Amino acid sequence: MEQDTIIYGKNAVIEALEAGNRTFNKILISSGAHKDVKIEKIKELAKANGIVFQFVNIQKLNQIEPEGRHQGVIAQIAPVKYTDLDDFIEKHRGKTASVVILDGVEDSHNVGAIIRSCVCAGVDGIILPSRRGVLINPTVEKTSAGAINHISIIKVNSLVNTVQRLKENNWWVIASDHHAKDNYYDVDYTDMNFALIMGAEHAGISKSLLKLADFVIKIPMLTNFNSLNVSNAAAIILFERCRQIIKSKTNGK
Amino acid sequence: MEQDTIIYGKNAVIEALEAGNRTFNKILISSGAHKDVKIEKIKELAKANGIVFQFVNIQKLNQIEPEGRHQGVIAQIAPVKYTDLDDFIEKHRGKTASVVILDGVEDSHNVGAIIRSCVCAGVDGIILPSRRGVLINPTVEKTSAGAINHISIIKVNSLVNTVQRLKENNWWVIASDHHAKDNYYDVDYTDMNFALIMGAEHAGISKSLLKLADFVIKIPMLTNFNSLNVSNAAAIILFERCRQIIKSKTNGK
Repeated sequence: MEQDTIIYGKNAVIEALEAGNRTFNKILISSGAHKDVKIEKIKELAKANGIVFQFVNIQKLNQIEPEGRHQGVIAQIAPVKYTDLDDFIEKHRGKTASVVILDGVEDSHNVGAIIRSCVCAGVDGIILPSRRGVLINPTVEKTSAGAINHISIIKVNSLVNTVQRLKENNWWVIASDHHAKDNYYDVDYTDMNFALIMGAEHAGISKSLLKLADFVIKIPMLTNFNSLNVSNAAAIILFERCRQIIKSKTNGK
Repeated sequence: MEQDTIIYGKNAVIEALEAGNRTFNKILISSGAHKDVKIEKIKELAKANGIVFQFVNIQKLNQIEPEGRHQGVIAQIAPVKYTDLDDFIEKHRGKTASVVILDGVEDSHNVGAIIRSCVCAGVDGIILPSRRGVLINPTVEKTSAGAINHISIIKVNSLVNTVQRLKENNWWVIASDHHAKDNYYDVDYTDMNFALIMGAEHAGISKSLLKLADFVIKIPMLTNFNSLNVSNAAAIILFERCRQIIKSKTNGK
């Protein structure tokens, strides 16, 4: 059995309680945090769901999360459940589904922010390689602001095999690379199963994946300072897709 | 005279050396970091610009930047020079310039990431209130990946007065607020002096500023999870403006 993980911060704990798809072991609340509205909400949600909460000395919380970003609340919960790639593909067969593939993104804050944007932009899944980049950890949970509970997380051994599987199942694979010729807004995303590959912060997307992509796109800049943060780059592309989908629905009416 | 600040990390130091608009006091390099290509580049750039560099024990660097993200390099430099609002307005009179106003953004990583996106998107300035949110600090410098040296930084006492000054000088003020009726992509940004206000992480934009805005816009989502990170939201709007400007130039040819 896998060990418990933690999530911390008031909003992250509330989000996970409300999402209802995580298994809570226990919620630890700083005994100095009694009267806060959000703490009250956490207590109510815990009671309603039969989850144990316990008031502890703040030092105990500081031991568990030494960087002091816990805001007086830490929940001990079962790790996020990963979704099987084949199950994910099967579930979304024949739909206009979407997934983001992270090719070795190393910063937990970036992974969390990307998951957050994905959920806002209606993305159905996120694919992480098991041996490169970060997997889901407490910082990713915190930075995702609870978004992690609203998206399928798929952990795979080989991204090359994964992209091949997606292509065999009629997904279109888009790779973001700043050497590309085509602009991200010149692709029509409205009627496809959409898989977007984002590369690692410094190395970018590996060549073996770039070769497999149906479209390689860039985000054109207005200056020569060509250095977007990977989570910002992902947001720009995902919301261009949103814009196109919303516009096409409006025009279709 | 203001005290020196520090910047750390190989790329941040190289960027600042190349930008050439910062006053360096000294560069400290870990004596264990001799053979690295980027360290060599830092040494060359320092020599070419008559800047002292000094090899020190890594413990010394850890004392100055205790979180250990210095990658073996710390530069002691004069603080970033703030630009006067009136000078900024004067310089950009009659042009299609752009500025981003941060109304109390509290997370240094967000401020750094926003500055980075601003420079990529050709934004000319960033306005920070002197008493709310963060100002430029070493984390902002680091997260901006050197972008901070390519944009005017304007520190003001009152954002209300600032927005009024901009409006008097024919700038259009756009406020991002998720309660807005209009979508960000339905405004034509191609031919205006553009001032975008982004609100604090939790509180959003203050009411007194919202009232002054010429346009209040939202980023429509594909789900009910309405919680974009502020730097991602800024990137989405700024790159929609980029998209429009690039498209209008291409169509005009």
